[in-house]
Amino acid sequence: MRIARFSIDGNVAFGAVEGDGAPGDDSTLVLDIIKGIPFADFELSGTKVPMSKVRLLPPVLPNKVVAIGRNYAEHAAELGNEVPDAPITFFKPSTSVVGPGDPITYPSFSQDLHHEAELAVVIGRMCREVPKERVKDVILGYTCANDVTARDVQKREKQWARAKGFDSSCPLGPWIETDLDPSDLTIQCTVNGEQRQLGRTSDMVRSIEDLIVHISEAMTLLPGDVILTGTPAGVGPLNVGDEVAVTIEGIGTLTNKVIKRG
Amino acid sequence: MRIARFSIDGNVAFGAVEGDGAPGDDSTLVLDIIKGIPFADFELSGTKVPMSKVRLLPPVLPNKVVAIGRNYAEHAAELGNEVPDAPITFFKPSTSVVGPGDPITYPSFSQDLHHEAELAVVIGRMCREVPKERVKDVILGYTCANDVTARDVQKREKQWARAKGFDSSCPLGPWIETDLDPSDLTIQCTVNGEQRQLGRTSDMVRSIEDLIVHISEAMTLLPGDVILTGTPAGVGPLNVGDEVAVTIEGIGTLTNKVIKRG
Repeated sequence: MRIARFSIDGNVAFGAVEGDGAPGDDSTLVLDIIKGIPFADFELSGTKVPMSKVRLLPPVLPNKVVAIGRNYAEHAAELGNEVPDAPITFFKPSTSVVGPGDPITYPSFSQDLHHEAELAVVIGRMCREVPKERVKDVILGYTCANDVTARDVQKREKQWARAKGFDSSCPLGPWIETDLDPSDLTIQCTVNGEQRQLGRTSDMVRSIEDLIVHISEAMTLLPGDVILTGTPAGVGPLNVGDEVAVTIEGIGTLTNKVIKRG
Repeated sequence: MRIARFSIDGNVAFGAVEGDGAPGDDSTLVLDIIKGIPFADFELSGTKVPMSKVRLLPPVLPNKVVAIGRNYAEHAAELGNEVPDAPITFFKPSTSVVGPGDPITYPSFSQDLHHEAELAVVIGRMCREVPKERVKDVILGYTCANDVTARDVQKREKQWARAKGFDSSCPLGPWIETDLDPSDLTIQCTVNGEQRQLGRTSDMVRSIEDLIVHISEAMTLLPGDVILTGTPAGVGPLNVGDEVAVTIEGIGTLTNKVIKRG
Protein backbone atom coordinates (compact mmCIF):
# COMPACT_ATOMS: atom_id res chain seq x y z
CA MET A 1 0.00 0.00 0.00
CA ARG A 2 1.13 3.54 -0.73
CA ILE A 3 0.25 5.88 2.16
CA ALA A 4 0.27 9.62 1.52
CA ARG A 5 -0.26 12.51 3.91
CA PHE A 6 -2.02 15.51 2.46
CA SER A 7 -4.06 18.59 3.08
CA ILE A 8 -7.40 19.31 1.49
CA ASP A 9 -9.60 22.30 2.30
CA GLY A 10 -7.43 23.07 5.32
CA ASN A 11 -7.66 19.56 6.82
CA VAL A 12 -4.75 17.14 7.09
CA ALA A 13 -5.30 13.42 6.50
CA PHE A 14 -3.56 10.21 5.53
CA GLY A 15 -4.81 8.32 2.49
CA ALA A 16 -4.08 5.17 0.51
CA VAL A 17 -2.97 6.00 -3.03
CA GLU A 18 -4.89 4.07 -5.70
CA GLY A 19 -4.20 3.89 -9.41
CA ASP A 20 -1.01 3.79 -11.46
CA GLY A 21 -0.27 7.13 -13.00
CA ALA A 22 2.79 7.52 -15.16
CA PRO A 23 5.66 9.23 -13.31
CA GLY A 24 4.81 12.89 -12.99
CA ASP A 25 1.22 12.31 -14.03
CA ASP A 26 -0.98 12.19 -10.95
CA SER A 27 -4.17 12.87 -12.90
CA THR A 28 -5.48 9.31 -12.60
CA LEU A 29 -4.55 8.78 -8.93
CA VAL A 30 -7.05 8.91 -6.09
CA LEU A 31 -6.63 8.87 -2.31
CA ASP A 32 -8.82 6.67 -0.13
CA ILE A 33 -8.90 8.56 3.18
CA ILE A 34 -7.61 6.58 6.15
CA LYS A 35 -9.66 6.45 9.35
CA GLY A 36 -7.12 6.82 12.14
CA ILE A 37 -3.38 6.89 11.63
CA PRO A 38 -1.09 4.45 9.82
CA PHE A 39 0.94 3.75 12.99
CA ALA A 40 -1.87 1.65 14.46
CA ASP A 41 -4.64 -0.54 13.11
CA PHE A 42 -6.59 1.53 10.63
CA GLU A 43 -9.31 1.24 8.02
CA LEU A 44 -9.85 2.85 4.66
CA SER A 45 -12.90 5.07 4.81
CA GLY A 46 -13.97 4.49 1.21
CA THR A 47 -14.15 8.27 0.80
CA LYS A 48 -11.95 9.04 -2.19
CA VAL A 49 -10.46 12.31 -3.38
CA PRO A 50 -8.53 12.86 -6.59
CA MET A 51 -4.79 13.47 -6.10
CA SER A 52 -5.12 16.59 -8.25
CA LYS A 53 -7.31 18.20 -5.57
CA VAL A 54 -4.91 17.78 -2.63
CA ARG A 55 -1.55 19.11 -1.58
CA LEU A 56 0.84 16.33 -0.65
CA LEU A 57 2.69 16.87 2.65
CA PRO A 58 5.75 15.08 4.03
CA PRO A 59 4.37 11.53 4.44
CA VAL A 60 5.38 11.64 8.11
CA LEU A 61 6.36 14.33 10.59
CA PRO A 62 9.28 12.55 12.24
CA ASN A 63 10.29 13.28 15.79
CA LYS A 64 13.85 12.62 14.61
CA VAL A 65 15.61 11.67 11.41
CA VAL A 66 18.66 9.47 11.95
CA ALA A 67 20.95 9.49 8.93
CA ILE A 68 23.94 7.42 7.89
CA GLY A 69 27.06 8.72 6.15
CA ARG A 70 29.23 6.88 3.61
CA ASN A 71 27.06 3.80 3.21
CA TYR A 72 27.87 3.39 -0.50
CA ALA A 73 31.58 2.76 -1.15
CA GLU A 74 31.68 4.65 -4.48
CA HIS A 75 30.19 7.75 -2.86
CA ALA A 76 32.70 7.66 0.01
CA ALA A 77 35.48 7.43 -2.58
CA GLU A 78 34.19 10.32 -4.72
CA LEU A 79 34.59 12.69 -1.74
CA GLY A 80 38.02 11.24 -0.92
CA ASN A 81 36.80 9.33 2.13
CA GLU A 82 37.10 5.74 3.26
CA VAL A 83 34.21 3.61 4.39
CA PRO A 84 34.35 3.98 8.18
CA ASP A 85 34.70 1.09 10.62
CA ALA A 86 31.50 2.13 12.38
CA PRO A 87 28.54 3.67 10.54
CA ILE A 88 28.61 7.48 10.66
CA THR A 89 25.39 8.39 12.43
CA PHE A 90 23.93 11.88 12.58
CA PHE A 91 20.60 13.63 13.10
CA LYS A 92 18.48 15.87 10.96
CA PRO A 93 15.87 17.69 13.05
CA SER A 94 12.12 17.75 12.46
CA THR A 95 12.43 21.37 11.36
CA SER A 96 14.49 20.25 8.33
CA VAL A 97 11.65 18.16 6.87
CA VAL A 98 9.65 19.36 3.86
CA GLY A 99 7.34 17.50 1.51
CA PRO A 100 7.10 16.74 -2.20
CA GLY A 101 6.89 19.92 -4.24
CA ASP A 102 8.04 22.09 -1.35
CA PRO A 103 10.94 24.44 -2.02
CA ILE A 104 14.49 23.77 -0.84
CA THR A 105 15.68 27.18 0.35
CA TYR A 106 19.35 27.83 -0.43
CA PRO A 107 20.93 28.58 2.96
CA SER A 108 22.48 32.00 3.46
CA PHE A 109 25.68 30.57 4.97
CA SER A 110 26.63 28.19 2.14
CA GLN A 111 27.89 28.55 -1.41
CA ASP A 112 27.97 24.83 -2.21
CA LEU A 113 24.66 23.05 -1.78
CA HIS A 114 24.58 19.36 -2.81
CA HIS A 115 21.85 16.80 -3.48
CA GLU A 116 22.06 13.33 -1.91
CA ALA A 117 19.34 10.88 -3.00
CA GLU A 118 18.55 8.32 -0.31
CA LEU A 119 16.17 5.52 0.55
CA ALA A 120 14.29 6.49 3.73
CA VAL A 121 12.91 3.92 6.15
CA VAL A 122 9.82 4.96 8.13
CA ILE A 123 9.58 3.42 11.61
CA GLY A 124 6.13 2.05 12.45
CA ARG A 125 6.34 1.35 16.15
CA MET A 126 8.23 2.42 19.24
CA CYS A 127 11.29 0.21 19.64
CA ARG A 128 14.72 -0.11 21.21
CA GLU A 129 17.51 -2.71 20.94
CA VAL A 130 15.82 -4.32 17.97
CA PRO A 131 17.29 -7.76 17.15
CA LYS A 132 18.23 -8.18 13.50
CA GLU A 133 15.51 -10.73 12.87
CA ARG A 134 12.84 -8.36 14.24
CA VAL A 135 13.79 -5.28 12.20
CA LYS A 136 11.08 -5.98 9.61
CA ASP A 137 8.44 -5.75 12.37
CA VAL A 138 9.32 -2.16 13.29
CA ILE A 139 9.29 -0.79 9.72
CA LEU A 140 6.12 0.79 8.37
CA GLY A 141 7.51 1.35 4.89
CA TYR A 142 9.85 3.28 2.62
CA THR A 143 9.95 6.64 0.93
CA CYS A 144 12.38 8.82 -1.03
CA ALA A 145 14.61 11.36 0.68
CA ASN A 146 17.08 14.04 -0.30
CA ASP A 147 19.79 14.55 2.33
CA VAL A 148 20.49 18.09 1.10
CA THR A 149 23.94 19.12 2.30
CA ALA A 150 25.84 22.40 2.53
CA ARG A 151 29.10 20.74 1.45
CA ASP A 152 31.32 23.71 2.27
CA VAL A 153 29.85 23.98 5.77
CA GLN A 154 30.18 20.22 6.24
CA LYS A 155 33.89 20.52 5.46
CA ARG A 156 34.57 23.36 7.87
CA GLU A 157 32.30 22.40 10.81
CA LYS A 158 33.31 19.25 12.63
CA GLN A 159 29.75 18.20 13.46
CA TRP A 160 27.09 18.44 10.76
CA ALA A 161 24.10 19.96 12.59
CA ARG A 162 24.12 23.13 10.47
CA ALA A 163 25.49 21.58 7.25
CA LYS A 164 22.78 18.92 7.13
CA GLY A 165 20.14 20.21 9.55
CA PHE A 166 19.07 23.56 8.13
CA ASP A 167 15.43 24.25 7.30
CA SER A 168 14.29 22.37 4.15
CA SER A 169 17.38 20.12 4.07
CA CYS A 170 15.26 16.96 4.36
CA PRO A 171 12.65 16.59 1.61
CA LEU A 172 10.65 13.37 2.10
CA GLY A 173 8.01 11.77 -0.15
CA PRO A 174 5.97 11.43 -2.22
CA TRP A 175 4.37 8.70 -0.07
CA ILE A 176 5.25 5.64 2.01
CA GLU A 177 5.31 2.31 0.18
CA THR A 178 4.58 -0.43 2.73
CA ASP A 179 4.89 -3.49 0.44
CA LEU A 180 8.43 -3.43 -0.82
CA ASP A 181 11.60 -5.49 -0.66
CA PRO A 182 14.22 -2.73 -0.26
CA SER A 183 17.26 -4.94 -0.85
CA ASP A 184 17.92 -4.26 -4.54
CA LEU A 185 16.20 -1.14 -5.87
CA THR A 186 17.40 1.43 -8.38
CA ILE A 187 17.89 4.85 -6.77
CA GLN A 188 18.52 7.87 -8.92
CA CYS A 189 18.71 11.61 -8.76
CA THR A 190 18.17 14.02 -11.63
CA VAL A 191 18.69 17.78 -11.73
CA ASN A 192 16.63 19.60 -14.35
CA GLY A 193 16.02 16.21 -15.96
CA GLU A 194 19.72 15.27 -16.23
CA GLN A 195 20.82 12.18 -14.40
CA ARG A 196 23.33 12.87 -11.63
CA GLN A 197 23.17 9.91 -9.24
CA LEU A 198 22.42 6.31 -10.09
CA GLY A 199 22.88 3.38 -7.75
CA ARG A 200 21.30 0.26 -6.37
CA THR A 201 20.37 -0.27 -2.75
CA SER A 202 22.15 -3.63 -2.98
CA ASP A 203 25.39 -1.62 -2.95
CA MET A 204 24.81 -0.37 0.62
CA VAL A 205 27.84 -1.18 2.79
CA ARG A 206 25.54 -1.93 5.71
CA SER A 207 22.06 -3.32 5.30
CA ILE A 208 18.92 -1.68 6.65
CA GLU A 209 18.77 -4.44 9.27
CA ASP A 210 22.32 -3.71 10.46
CA LEU A 211 21.68 0.05 10.58
CA ILE A 212 18.52 -0.27 12.68
CA VAL A 213 20.26 -2.68 15.07
CA HIS A 214 23.12 -0.17 15.39
CA ILE A 215 20.93 2.88 15.93
CA SER A 216 18.39 1.23 18.23
CA GLU A 217 21.20 -0.13 20.39
CA ALA A 218 21.58 3.48 21.55
CA MET A 219 18.22 5.13 21.27
CA THR A 220 14.48 4.56 21.26
CA LEU A 221 12.90 4.95 17.85
CA LEU A 222 9.39 6.38 17.77
CA PRO A 223 6.56 5.80 15.28
CA GLY A 224 7.20 8.13 12.35
CA ASP A 225 10.94 8.43 12.97
CA VAL A 226 12.90 8.16 9.75
CA ILE A 227 16.22 6.44 8.96
CA LEU A 228 18.18 7.73 5.95
CA THR A 229 20.37 4.96 4.57
CA GLY A 230 23.11 6.83 2.73
CA THR A 231 23.60 8.12 -0.81
CA PRO A 232 25.15 6.49 -3.89
CA ALA A 233 27.86 8.13 -6.02
CA GLY A 234 27.20 11.18 -8.14
CA VAL A 235 26.49 13.90 -5.60
CA GLY A 236 26.89 17.40 -6.95
CA PRO A 237 25.81 21.01 -6.74
CA LEU A 238 22.33 22.46 -6.64
CA ASN A 239 21.73 26.02 -7.76
CA VAL A 240 18.83 28.40 -7.28
CA GLY A 241 16.18 27.52 -9.86
CA ASP A 242 17.19 23.84 -10.16
CA GLU A 243 14.54 21.14 -10.00
CA VAL A 244 15.92 18.07 -8.22
CA ALA A 245 14.13 14.71 -8.39
CA VAL A 246 14.85 11.54 -6.41
CA THR A 247 13.33 8.40 -7.90
CA ILE A 248 13.40 5.01 -6.22
CA GLU A 249 12.16 1.89 -7.98
CA GLY A 250 8.88 0.70 -6.53
CA ILE A 251 8.22 3.93 -4.62
CA GLY A 252 8.00 6.95 -6.90
CA THR A 253 9.57 10.36 -7.42
CA LEU A 254 10.23 13.17 -4.94
CA THR A 255 10.65 16.51 -6.72
CA ASN A 256 11.72 19.83 -5.18
CA LYS A 257 12.85 23.15 -6.56
CA VAL A 258 15.72 25.17 -5.13
CA ILE A 259 14.78 28.76 -4.33
CA LYS A 260 16.58 31.79 -3.05
CA ARG A 261 15.90 32.78 0.52
CA GLY A 262 13.40 35.64 0.25
CA MET B 1 10.06 32.95 38.26
CA ARG B 2 11.00 29.27 38.53
CA ILE B 3 8.76 27.12 36.30
CA ALA B 4 8.66 23.38 36.95
CA ARG B 5 6.87 20.62 35.04
CA PHE B 6 5.56 17.80 37.16
CA SER B 7 3.12 14.95 37.47
CA ILE B 8 0.67 14.53 40.29
CA ASP B 9 -1.97 11.82 40.50
CA GLY B 10 -1.31 10.92 36.87
CA ASN B 11 -1.76 14.45 35.54
CA VAL B 12 1.03 16.58 34.06
CA ALA B 13 1.16 20.32 34.76
CA PHE B 14 3.46 23.30 34.87
CA GLY B 15 3.78 25.23 38.11
CA ALA B 16 5.58 28.24 39.57
CA VAL B 17 7.96 27.22 42.35
CA GLU B 18 7.50 29.24 45.53
CA GLY B 19 9.67 29.25 48.64
CA ASP B 20 13.40 28.96 49.19
CA GLY B 21 14.36 25.49 50.35
CA ALA B 22 17.98 24.75 51.08
CA PRO B 23 19.65 22.79 48.27
CA GLY B 24 18.34 19.25 48.40
CA ASP B 25 15.57 20.19 50.80
CA ASP B 26 12.33 20.63 48.90
CA SER B 27 10.16 20.24 51.98
CA THR B 28 9.23 23.92 52.18
CA LEU B 29 8.63 24.45 48.44
CA VAL B 30 5.20 24.65 46.88
CA LEU B 31 4.04 24.75 43.28
CA ASP B 32 1.38 27.21 42.12
CA ILE B 33 -0.24 25.43 39.17
CA ILE B 34 -0.06 27.33 35.88
CA LYS B 35 -3.21 27.76 33.80
CA GLY B 36 -2.08 27.20 30.22
CA ILE B 37 1.52 26.73 29.15
CA PRO B 38 4.57 28.86 29.82
CA PHE B 39 5.18 29.43 26.09
CA ALA B 40 2.25 31.84 25.87
CA ASP B 41 0.52 34.27 28.18
CA PHE B 42 -0.44 32.35 31.28
CA GLU B 43 -1.80 32.88 34.78
CA LEU B 44 -1.10 31.26 38.08
CA SER B 45 -4.17 29.37 39.25
CA GLY B 46 -3.60 29.96 42.94
CA THR B 47 -4.00 26.21 43.46
CA LYS B 48 -0.88 25.13 45.32
CA VAL B 49 0.62 21.70 45.84
CA PRO B 50 3.62 20.86 47.99
CA MET B 51 6.76 19.89 46.05
CA SER B 52 6.99 16.78 48.22
CA LYS B 53 3.74 15.44 46.69
CA VAL B 54 4.76 15.69 43.03
CA ARG B 55 7.25 14.05 40.71
CA LEU B 56 9.33 16.59 38.85
CA LEU B 57 9.60 15.94 35.09
CA PRO B 58 11.99 17.44 32.56
CA PRO B 59 10.96 21.12 32.66
CA VAL B 60 10.37 21.02 28.90
CA LEU B 61 9.96 18.28 26.30
CA PRO B 62 12.12 19.79 23.57
CA ASN B 63 11.50 19.04 19.93
CA LYS B 64 15.27 19.27 19.54
CA VAL B 65 18.28 19.96 21.72
CA VAL B 66 21.07 21.83 19.94
CA ALA B 67 24.38 21.49 21.75
CA ILE B 68 27.74 23.21 21.44
CA GLY B 69 31.14 21.53 21.79
CA ARG B 70 34.34 23.09 23.17
CA ASN B 71 32.87 26.36 24.34
CA TYR B 72 35.16 26.59 27.38
CA ALA B 73 38.85 26.81 26.46
CA GLU B 74 40.10 24.84 29.49
CA HIS B 75 37.76 21.96 28.70
CA ALA B 76 38.87 21.85 25.06
CA ALA B 77 42.48 21.71 26.27
CA GLU B 78 41.86 18.93 28.81
CA LEU B 79 40.76 16.60 25.99
CA GLY B 80 43.68 17.69 23.80
CA ASN B 81 41.52 19.80 21.48
CA GLU B 82 41.75 23.36 20.24
CA VAL B 83 38.89 25.81 20.34
CA PRO B 84 37.42 25.51 16.83
CA ASP B 85 37.05 28.41 14.40
CA ALA B 86 33.32 27.75 14.14
CA PRO B 87 31.24 26.50 17.05
CA ILE B 88 30.83 22.72 17.01
CA THR B 89 27.10 22.20 16.72
CA PHE B 90 25.33 18.88 17.26
CA PHE B 91 21.91 17.52 18.18
CA LYS B 92 20.64 15.48 21.06
CA PRO B 93 17.21 13.98 20.25
CA SER B 94 14.05 14.32 22.33
CA THR B 95 14.40 10.65 23.28
CA SER B 96 17.61 11.48 25.19
CA VAL B 97 15.85 13.83 27.64
CA VAL B 98 15.15 12.78 31.22
CA GLY B 99 14.21 14.80 34.27
CA PRO B 100 15.59 15.50 37.73
CA GLY B 101 15.90 12.30 39.73
CA ASP B 102 15.53 10.08 36.68
CA PRO B 103 18.19 7.44 36.16
CA ILE B 104 20.99 7.75 33.62
CA THR B 105 21.21 4.26 32.13
CA TYR B 106 24.79 3.22 31.36
CA PRO B 107 24.76 2.39 27.65
CA SER B 108 25.60 -1.18 26.63
CA PHE B 109 28.02 -0.05 23.90
CA SER B 110 30.30 2.14 26.05
CA GLN B 111 32.86 1.56 28.79
CA ASP B 112 33.65 5.24 29.39
CA LEU B 113 30.66 7.37 30.32
CA HIS B 114 31.42 11.02 31.22
CA HIS B 115 29.48 13.84 32.87
CA GLU B 116 29.39 17.31 31.28
CA ALA B 117 27.64 20.00 33.34
CA GLU B 118 26.09 22.69 31.14
CA LEU B 119 23.89 25.74 31.28
CA ALA B 120 20.78 25.06 29.16
CA VAL B 121 18.82 27.82 27.45
CA VAL B 122 15.09 27.17 26.93
CA ILE B 123 13.62 28.81 23.83
CA GLY B 124 10.32 30.55 24.43
CA ARG B 125 9.05 31.32 20.96
CA MET B 126 9.39 30.14 17.39
CA CYS B 127 12.25 32.01 15.72
CA ARG B 128 14.74 32.00 12.87
CA GLU B 129 17.65 34.28 11.92
CA VAL B 130 17.52 35.99 15.29
CA PRO B 131 19.55 39.23 15.37
CA LYS B 132 21.94 39.45 18.30
CA GLU B 133 20.00 42.27 19.94
CA ARG B 134 16.77 40.22 19.83
CA VAL B 135 18.14 37.02 21.37
CA LYS B 136 16.82 37.92 24.82
CA ASP B 137 13.29 38.07 23.40
CA VAL B 138 13.31 34.42 22.27
CA ILE B 139 14.59 32.98 25.57
CA LEU B 140 12.08 31.72 28.13
CA GLY B 141 14.72 30.92 30.75
CA TYR B 142 17.55 28.71 31.92
CA THR B 143 17.98 25.30 33.48
CA CYS B 144 20.75 22.83 34.33
CA ALA B 145 21.79 20.11 31.90
CA ASN B 146 24.15 17.17 31.86
CA ASP B 147 25.47 16.43 28.37
CA VAL B 148 26.23 12.82 29.28
CA THR B 149 28.76 11.45 26.80
CA ALA B 150 30.05 7.99 25.89
CA ARG B 151 33.62 9.26 25.51
CA ASP B 152 34.98 6.08 23.92
CA VAL B 153 32.20 6.06 21.34
CA GLN B 154 32.69 9.77 20.68
CA LYS B 155 36.35 9.07 19.90
CA ARG B 156 35.67 6.22 17.47
CA GLU B 157 32.53 7.48 15.71
CA LYS B 158 33.03 10.55 13.55
CA GLN B 159 29.56 11.99 14.23
CA TRP B 160 28.22 11.97 17.77
CA ALA B 161 24.62 10.84 17.37
CA ARG B 162 25.16 7.64 19.36
CA ALA B 163 27.89 8.95 21.71
CA LYS B 164 25.76 11.89 22.86
CA GLY B 165 22.24 10.94 21.75
CA PHE B 166 21.51 7.70 23.58
CA ASP B 167 18.47 7.38 25.84
CA SER B 168 18.92 9.29 29.14
CA SER B 169 21.99 11.20 27.89
CA CYS B 170 20.29 14.56 28.41
CA PRO B 171 19.09 15.15 31.99
CA LEU B 172 17.41 18.58 32.29
CA GLY B 173 16.11 20.35 35.39
CA PRO B 174 15.14 20.89 38.09
CA TRP B 175 13.12 23.82 36.69
CA ILE B 176 13.38 26.83 34.39
CA GLU B 177 14.54 30.09 35.96
CA THR B 178 13.12 32.94 33.89
CA ASP B 179 14.67 35.89 35.78
CA LEU B 180 18.40 35.44 35.49
CA ASP B 181 21.42 37.16 34.01
CA PRO B 182 23.35 34.15 32.63
CA SER B 183 26.58 36.01 31.86
CA ASP B 184 28.59 35.17 34.99
CA LEU B 185 27.25 32.21 36.97
CA THR B 186 29.10 29.47 38.81
CA ILE B 187 28.52 26.07 37.22
CA GLN B 188 29.64 22.94 38.99
CA CYS B 189 29.35 19.20 38.87
CA THR B 190 29.77 16.79 41.75
CA VAL B 191 29.89 13.00 41.71
CA ASN B 192 28.89 11.35 45.00
CA GLY B 193 29.34 14.75 46.64
CA GLU B 194 32.91 15.29 45.35
CA GLN B 195 33.49 18.27 43.18
CA ARG B 196 34.57 17.40 39.62
CA GLN B 197 33.78 20.40 37.45
CA LEU B 198 33.82 24.05 38.44
CA GLY B 199 33.60 26.98 36.07
CA ARG B 200 31.93 30.27 35.38
CA THR B 201 29.66 30.98 32.44
CA SER B 202 31.73 34.11 31.84
CA ASP B 203 34.45 31.78 30.52
CA MET B 204 32.35 30.68 27.54
CA VAL B 205 34.28 31.22 24.31
CA ARG B 206 31.08 32.27 22.56
CA SER B 207 28.24 34.01 24.32
CA ILE B 208 24.67 32.76 24.41
CA GLU B 209 23.76 35.58 22.03
CA ASP B 210 26.41 34.51 19.50
CA LEU B 211 25.38 30.84 19.74
CA ILE B 212 21.69 31.54 19.10
CA VAL B 213 22.55 33.80 16.17
CA HIS B 214 24.76 31.02 14.75
CA ILE B 215 22.21 28.22 15.22
CA SER B 216 19.14 30.19 14.15
CA GLU B 217 20.94 31.30 10.97
CA ALA B 218 20.44 27.70 9.84
CA MET B 219 17.32 26.41 11.51
CA THR B 220 14.02 27.38 13.03
CA LEU B 221 13.92 27.09 16.81
CA LEU B 222 10.62 26.04 18.34
CA PRO B 223 9.14 26.87 21.75
CA GLY B 224 10.67 24.41 24.22
CA ASP B 225 13.77 23.71 22.12
CA VAL B 226 16.90 23.69 24.26
CA ILE B 227 20.41 25.03 23.59
CA LEU B 228 23.28 23.47 25.57
CA THR B 229 26.12 25.94 25.87
CA GLY B 230 29.17 23.75 26.47
CA THR B 231 30.90 22.35 29.52
CA PRO B 232 33.74 23.73 31.67
CA ALA B 233 36.88 21.76 32.54
CA GLY B 234 36.83 18.75 34.83
CA VAL B 235 34.87 16.18 32.86
CA GLY B 236 35.41 12.63 34.03
CA PRO B 237 33.97 9.15 34.34
CA LEU B 238 30.61 8.10 35.69
CA ASN B 239 30.14 4.59 37.04
CA VAL B 240 27.07 2.55 37.84
CA GLY B 241 25.81 3.64 41.26
CA ASP B 242 27.22 7.16 41.03
CA GLU B 243 25.06 10.14 41.90
CA VAL B 244 25.90 13.09 39.65
CA ALA B 245 24.72 16.61 40.45
CA VAL B 246 24.89 19.74 38.29
CA THR B 247 24.46 22.99 40.20
CA ILE B 248 24.20 26.39 38.56
CA GLU B 249 24.13 29.58 40.60
CA GLY B 250 20.69 31.15 40.60
CA ILE B 251 18.97 28.06 39.18
CA GLY B 252 19.38 25.02 41.43
CA THR B 253 20.65 21.45 41.34
CA LEU B 254 19.93 18.65 38.87
CA THR B 255 20.68 15.24 40.39
CA ASN B 256 20.66 11.87 38.64
CA LYS B 257 21.90 8.42 39.50
CA VAL B 258 23.69 6.12 37.07
CA ILE B 259 22.14 2.68 36.80
CA LYS B 260 22.95 -0.50 34.97
CA ARG B 261 20.76 -1.32 32.00
CA GLY B 262 18.30 -3.90 33.32
